[in-house]
Amino acid sequence: MADGCSKGRSFMIPFFLCFGSTMAQCKGTVVLAYSGGLDTSCILVWLKEQGYDVIAYLANIGQKEDFEAARKKALALGAKKVYIEDVSREFVESFIWPAVQANALYEDRYLLGTALARPCIARGLVGIAQQERAPYIAHGATGKGNDQVRFELSCYALCPKIKVVAPWRLPEFYQRFPGRCELMDYAKKHGIPVPVTPQTPWSMDENLMHISYEAGILENPKNQAPPGLYTKTCDPANSPDTPDVLEIEFERGVPVKVTNTGDGATRSSALELFVYLNDIAGKHGVGRIDIVENRFVGMKSRGIYETPAGTILYHAHLDIEAFTMDREVRKIKQGLSLKFSELVYNGFWHSPECEFLRECIGRSQEPVVGTVRLSVFKGHVYILGRESPRSLYNEELVSMNVQGDYEPADATGFININSLRLKEYHRLQSKVTVKQDE
Amino acid sequence: MADGCSKGRSFMIPFFLCFGSTMAQCKGTVVLAYSGGLDTSCILVWLKEQGYDVIAYLANIGQKEDFEAARKKALALGAKKVYIEDVSREFVESFIWPAVQANALYEDRYLLGTALARPCIARGLVGIAQQERAPYIAHGATGKGNDQVRFELSCYALCPKIKVVAPWRLPEFYQRFPGRCELMDYAKKHGIPVPVTPQTPWSMDENLMHISYEAGILENPKNQAPPGLYTKTCDPANSPDTPDVLEIEFERGVPVKVTNTGDGATRSSALELFVYLNDIAGKHGVGRIDIVENRFVGMKSRGIYETPAGTILYHAHLDIEAFTMDREVRKIKQGLSLKFSELVYNGFWHSPECEFLRECIGRSQEPVVGTVRLSVFKGHVYILGRESPRSLYNEELVSMNVQGDYEPADATGFININSLRLKEYHRLQSKVTVKQDE
Amino acid sequence: MADGCSKGRSFMIPFFLCFGSTMAQCKGTVVLAYSGGLDTSCILVWLKEQGYDVIAYLANIGQKEDFEAARKKALALGAKKVYIEDVSREFVESFIWPAVQANALYEDRYLLGTALARPCIARGLVGIAQQERAPYIAHGATGKGNDQVRFELSCYALCPKIKVVAPWRLPEFYQRFPGRCELMDYAKKHGIPVPVTPQTPWSMDENLMHISYEAGILENPKNQAPPGLYTKTCDPANSPDTPDVLEIEFERGVPVKVTNTGDGATRSSALELFVYLNDIAGKHGVGRIDIVENRFVGMKSRGIYETPAGTILYHAHLDIEAFTMDREVRKIKQGLSLKFSELVYNGFWHSPECEFLRECIGRSQEPVVGTVRLSVFKGHVYILGRESPRSLYNEELVSMNVQGDYEPADATGFININSLRLKEYHRLQSKVTVKQDE
Amino acid sequence: MADGCSKGRSFMIPFFLCFGSTMAQCKGTVVLAYSGGLDTSCILVWLKEQGYDVIAYLANIGQKEDFEAARKKALALGAKKVYIEDVSREFVESFIWPAVQANALYEDRYLLGTALARPCIARGLVGIAQQERAPYIAHGATGKGNDQVRFELSCYALCPKIKVVAPWRLPEFYQRFPGRCELMDYAKKHGIPVPVTPQTPWSMDENLMHISYEAGILENPKNQAPPGLYTKTCDPANSPDTPDVLEIEFERGVPVKVTNTGDGATRSSALELFVYLNDIAGKHGVGRIDIVENRFVGMKSRGIYETPAGTILYHAHLDIEAFTMDREVRKIKQGLSLKFSELVYNGFWHSPECEFLRECIGRSQEPVVGTVRLSVFKGHVYILGRESPRSLYNEELVSMNVQGDYEPADATGFININSLRLKEYHRLQSKVTVKQDE
Repeated sequence: MADGCSKGRSFMIPFFLCFGSTMAQCKGTVVLAYSGGLDTSCILVWLKEQGYDVIAYLANIGQKEDFEAARKKALALGAKKVYIEDVSREFVESFIWPAVQANALYEDRYLLGTALARPCIARGLVGIAQQERAPYIAHGATGKGNDQVRFELSCYALCPKIKVVAPWRLPEFYQRFPGRCELMDYAKKHGIPVPVTPQTPWSMDENLMHISYEAGILENPKNQAPPGLYTKTCDPANSPDTPDVLEIEFERGVPVKVTNTGDGATRSSALELFVYLNDIAGKHGVGRIDIVENRFVGMKSRGIYETPAGTILYHAHLDIEAFTMDREVRKIKQGLSLKFSELVYNGFWHSPECEFLRECIGRSQEPVVGTVRLSVFKGHVYILGRESPRSLYNEELVSMNVQGDYEPADATGFININSLRLKEYHRLQSKVTVKQDE
Repeated sequence: MADGCSKGRSFMIPFFLCFGSTMAQCKGTVVLAYSGGLDTSCILVWLKEQGYDVIAYLANIGQKEDFEAARKKALALGAKKVYIEDVSREFVESFIWPAVQANALYEDRYLLGTALARPCIARGLVGIAQQERAPYIAHGATGKGNDQVRFELSCYALCPKIKVVAPWRLPEFYQRFPGRCELMDYAKKHGIPVPVTPQTPWSMDENLMHISYEAGILENPKNQAPPGLYTKTCDPANSPDTPDVLEIEFERGVPVKVTNTGDGATRSSALELFVYLNDIAGKHGVGRIDIVENRFVGMKSRGIYETPAGTILYHAHLDIEAFTMDREVRKIKQGLSLKFSELVYNGFWHSPECEFLRECIGRSQEPVVGTVRLSVFKGHVYILGRESPRSLYNEELVSMNVQGDYEPADATGFININSLRLKEYHRLQSKVTVKQDE
Repeated sequence: MADGCSKGRSFMIPFFLCFGSTMAQCKGTVVLAYSGGLDTSCILVWLKEQGYDVIAYLANIGQKEDFEAARKKALALGAKKVYIEDVSREFVESFIWPAVQANALYEDRYLLGTALARPCIARGLVGIAQQERAPYIAHGATGKGNDQVRFELSCYALCPKIKVVAPWRLPEFYQRFPGRCELMDYAKKHGIPVPVTPQTPWSMDENLMHISYEAGILENPKNQAPPGLYTKTCDPANSPDTPDVLEIEFERGVPVKVTNTGDGATRSSALELFVYLNDIAGKHGVGRIDIVENRFVGMKSRGIYETPAGTILYHAHLDIEAFTMDREVRKIKQGLSLKFSELVYNGFWHSPECEFLRECIGRSQEPVVGTVRLSVFKGHVYILGRESPRSLYNEELVSMNVQGDYEPADATGFININSLRLKEYHRLQSKVTVKQDE
Repeated sequence: MADGCSKGRSFMIPFFLCFGSTMAQCKGTVVLAYSGGLDTSCILVWLKEQGYDVIAYLANIGQKEDFEAARKKALALGAKKVYIEDVSREFVESFIWPAVQANALYEDRYLLGTALARPCIARGLVGIAQQERAPYIAHGATGKGNDQVRFELSCYALCPKIKVVAPWRLPEFYQRFPGRCELMDYAKKHGIPVPVTPQTPWSMDENLMHISYEAGILENPKNQAPPGLYTKTCDPANSPDTPDVLEIEFERGVPVKVTNTGDGATRSSALELFVYLNDIAGKHGVGRIDIVENRFVGMKSRGIYETPAGTILYHAHLDIEAFTMDREVRKIKQGLSLKFSELVYNGFWHSPECEFLRECIGRSQEPVVGTVRLSVFKGHVYILGRESPRSLYNEELVSMNVQGDYEPADATGFININSLRLKEYHRLQSKVTVKQDE
């Protein structure tokens, strides 16, 4: 990673590469994080208008998308090149797995689906920019959100020399397109295909791990999400009346095998396992939340999220970890995870501190081995039992019927010594109270 | 509280009070935390046998119990006096409410139902001991568990001079009663009524907030809980097919009113409100967990818990708090709550540090005002929306369609400055890498 | 504070007030944080040139300065008004005292002298701006430093409508004055008096609490500070050969009286006490540090600081706090103080989270009462002894010769229970090791 | 380490080994942590009296001691064997170095000299016990202190089957020896040599890192330490009038070379380097503290400590770390170190959590490389400068005279976005205030 960027010596000469630009002034090549949608299509055209050569980069990170149509569209709009890269497996193994190990949760509720995807996509963008010797990267994230920060911090961390073009923060762009109408007009004028289906009155962002819904009618935090909004999970009211019971096997805090005890189905590879859990959780309506969260830029926003597989894994990992990890190690690791979650949310995945935390948390996961049995039913995950060769659970020691290697009288000393400080405090309080009463 | 104990000057003379004891040696009066069950009935008789005068204290903390039958039983067994005290309201207002304000959760999962009840009961015990000038308190908690610690630390903190008799930690007791059979024999011999229904193969502890199941067949952490185990919540598989939608109003982080939007039912007083939420949550199967946790004495144990109302309130409070509290205050408060939960679990409710935390957390709750709308259905709680006069949510500021009082260009500077450190780190890493490659 | 700003309705009409401006375009009134030095004098003139009416605000925060000369200079340069406000007492009581209570220390070493002064000065600036209905505030802090952040966050927090003019961040200013020469030329051209003494090859910032030296030849972190640099403390090599022994009395964690046991001198009022400690510490060379620290904007910088009184108070408060505060409360408070120090350093004094921390920390100081005896000698502070009516120290309990109210056998149980977890861990490790060896 | 203990199968048969015991009942072999002093000499004889075979273990951990005399004495008193083991180097490399890396400090002041030595000695004890198949370990630590906990937790963690005999916690011992007189009598009666010099009216514990003074006349926390008490450091009043200037070179956060710039002396090996720093610091009176601290058993105690080399290294390491470590990594590491210090103080060196922390902290030290220049003078350490090939300090970036790769305008955006939250909070506060005023 460190040296990747230093190959970019040719950043000095990209101007020579600007063949084919019909614009008055050639600004060099920009790699655009392209989604295939209206916004980034307009941005593609607008960037060309501004004098950039545009390379479209579309990461397949598990979203539902017609990638070939997107490729054709980008080329038709004038992209010099289009890269479509399947990073799904990498996303699961290098980004979701560390989050599972951490039990990562932002502000007690958000499983970080979007936040984890951004540094993964950014890594792809930077890779192409280096390969293509492009000095610029562009994205379609808004100026009020977290994603701009996540994209850009990742890009700068991986390649400090890169320059980011964020049209939604440029007055010449956002003043030209104050609303959707102006974008539509621009699209029509420049032959950009506009969506034929009516737009949902909210915006969405999807990847393998989750889908988010925000903005539009959801901006009023009192408004309930309309029933038809959800796309990744079934309505629990209509979900099956019998649960799926799964056994999830972990090694080093990461799931390595899932078995459906009903039909015996199993999945072992990271990606397949995750997709399978998405299916099962989705079928039973698991993973929906509606929250108000605090953005890094300092405002509160409302988001509705579906994280099906992530929700199952959160519960399963919590369980196997509690079963195998020492109490005090767990407490320290919990503190590290809190910090980790905040960093990931804020866009600092590619930072020295987040790297450090991943190493520490990873180290803590060494004994997190074993199998959790759970039931998925009507929007909820129920832990049923667990077993592990590395468990610190000692059935004999804890038993109410067997004394085991435990001396009850020791507890008396333990309690007495622990009470010493409390007694001293009481003694002082009494003294103070008495004095005040005099 | 501080001076209560110092009244105990007569601790010096309790021997004079031992009228009526038929034992060889009169040891003084003991206040026993009496439950009405087999264990504490045997302990009552055994304590008399040892030469104590026994006062039975039974706290009504919301458990299902025939209190009058328990009173008669204790008197019949030779208790000098029986106190039955209804502390339910106090339990809700002084113990559960602070936990709701804290979003208290032990090891990410346990809502602390038993841990909150112990210091409440202990306060009652100490009160009676002081009133009766009894130098001793006794309880029936086992020598391996948390409850002995919670009881005793509370007692010692409130009245350092008190002496605790914990029969299950005394060899003369636990060696005499190594198993249930010996207890039953003793009961029969001393005219202690034994339960006619067959005992469940696990032990239970109930109060208004929750019920716990542990030990017996549950000691094998792999064993699934049998379907008939649960008593406070309905099986989600058989729960109603339509949700209850509630609106819960908070002031200073504490629920002050609940309204069922279906039938318009409302509850406002702390106790009634909590009981009502127990009903609704119980009806929909909300609040079941199966966990392995770390006891204060250093062993892992497995517990199955039902916390119906507590689960609803946990989710509702999280939501209204996130809506009204500043991001950074929340982060600090979250750290305090983690510590608070650990202290409560370990039995340090009545300690200087827990007092300090309650004050700090209480202070943070001043702006936590507003109403959360949620749906309770098939074992799960779904947040639907929220509103508050003290919200820090600014719909205009966050809107994707309105610029509001926000300058997108500022985000560029924000990101650039945040990236400075990351770029420097990259610079150094590259230097190091290059050197190592040489 | 909250309503102070809302008086600013007249922010809408400041343009009517722009009498006397000879500039083409009147921009309104700006309150300038004026120091009397070359930089802010040039800024004063430049702001007028830009079309502002300038009010100079000079806070007397304990720095050595000829305030009347500064007033005349500002008026001569065209300031519409000059405010010189003595905020020393307020600085000590409302800013330094909370830092003493917190044992505030940034990155384990820096006592925050400058960081504490900024929000105090900013409060003054905002007060004048509101009184004068000035829509602008200006300061001479550089674009790379912390002080710009501290000034502006304070101003925005106290009065969100205020607009800040920071010339060193405006290209039209900093490109015009890339170095000191250009400033000198400008000064000469505009009749701004230039310093007659040669400038030190570093920059300084002074207030009652400390003085900082940075930049210039100090920018090379390897360079030792030249001997003549220090101004607030004597060189320990030349300091007196006999110590001063002081007794400092605290209430609620704040010093209320200092007595010199040598000559019997005493000081009781906050300001006089602090000045006296500065004298004593300065005389003995106490309070010098040379550090590399991390600025909020993300770069490391090197600073040399003298904090005479602050250093004595840091040590004295640590001591009396440890003597009177419960161990666990102290640990929680220590965590809060770490956060507090970081917030103060970064400029968030006037923020909801810092307010919250001050309240929590303040609450913790209630029992911090007593007297510390210490010796100040040759650059070092030596604690000699302490006493307190609120001490939790129990001489009988801790005595090696008296058993006191302590049962040594209890320690056996305490240790055994604490070892339980360690033994279990060993058991598992052995199992794992054996398996791996097979 | 893990398997070491499992060799102890022969723990089952130690009774066969008890040849030569003249006592009625042979209890087996005990390894005694022997110091050569009066207390452990009496304990040695007493243990034999109780029926144990005694092996004396004396760790050379840098204390001043006539080890050969101690050996002879132990044998004369009836020890079956005497082991004298030089663990100084191990103590420095495996215990002190990790503490230096951590900047370990208990309660902001104590450098943990005794706390670090105990687990090192305990490791030796356990090693001998395993080698000798002795089922028991004994020590002379008192029942109120930390050292009993540190010894025993280490022993149990390293070898769960070991049994500890702590005479000062056994009524049959401590009731027999309530004071020093009884010990002296016992000594005389059993031919134990008693010290000829009058005993100091306090107790001491020394090792290579520090010496502690406590108890006796020091138990009154108001009493100043008598001038003649100190043994490891010179009185700063009489220390040299010229400083020693040292350069300390670090690798991975550990000192690898010290150079005295005055006479050019250098030391490179861990042990020699540490001894040399002890000499220099001792000569200049560096490393004295007088504190009240919180013991693990819950009482406050007063201790006076000298930690000469440790104090220099604390300051030097803080400096080089701040110079080379990323700001945010440092903050996380600081939190880990706080926990580490507490664990070490409480005796949990050999625990899963402390192991975990050492690994995490160790990982953070990878870039902590470079040289610190400092002056040691009159009881104080002054940092003079530092340099490093891994520094994150960027002289050009931070320079006031050069713009470097920094855009001042970015700071405007950075501040504005950081102020957003504060403005929102003010807006709400104003609203609330206005309402309350109505």
